[in-house]
Amino acid sequence: MIEKIDHIAITVPHIKKAVEWYTKYRKCKVKYQDESWALLQFKNVDLALVLPAEHPPHIAFVDNTIKNGTIHRDGSESIYDHDTFGNIIEKIKYEKKNKK
Amino acid sequence: MIEKIDHIAITVPHIKKAVEWYTKYRKCKVKYQDESWALLQFKNVDLALVLPAEHPPHIAFVDNTIKNGTIHRDGSESIYDHDTFGNIIEKIKYEKKNKK
Repeated sequence: MIEKIDHIAITVPHIKKAVEWYTKYRKCKVKYQDESWALLQFKNVDLALVLPAEHPPHIAFVDNTIKNGTIHRDGSESIYDHDTFGNIIEKIKYEKKNKK
Repeated sequence: MIEKIDHIAITVPHIKKAVEWYTKYRKCKVKYQDESWALLQFKNVDLALVLPAEHPPHIAFVDNTIKNGTIHRDGSESIYDHDTFGNIIEKIKYEKKNKK
């Protein structure tokens, strides 16, 4: 069985302005937003908008096998990784109650 | 109704090596591959691996309203765009027979 991509994160210089731009540009739902990042929900995958000083641009793969990762407020747990070509990858798992 | 992201494209220096790396790293299916790019199918979205000299890294949104775009071999039609923050965006539509 093939796996799922949880979200993609791109960098923007200003979260509020980027949320305004993207929600005007495409039909999507704001799942989360604060001053340092936002999460936009599309039909099949989420798009994170992040400040360059806070997070790198990355792709997050769902991986329920990870251990000892960083625990986030929504109960998810994740570990940063990278490919051998310079791209940053996150592996993320959700608690069962929040399972996507 | 919220919209769909068709694919995300990241740059890699060598397509064959990157396909080998990603298919070993995550469970996914190689939908297309040549020397200049490859398309990996995940459960919910596709991941394109592209050479920096051929394509920029980008996010492709499904948009069936585009006109006069570039026609690709698979019958899809697309236009490149960008946000106001420097990120490159593709808008892509598929012929009905190939509709995702």
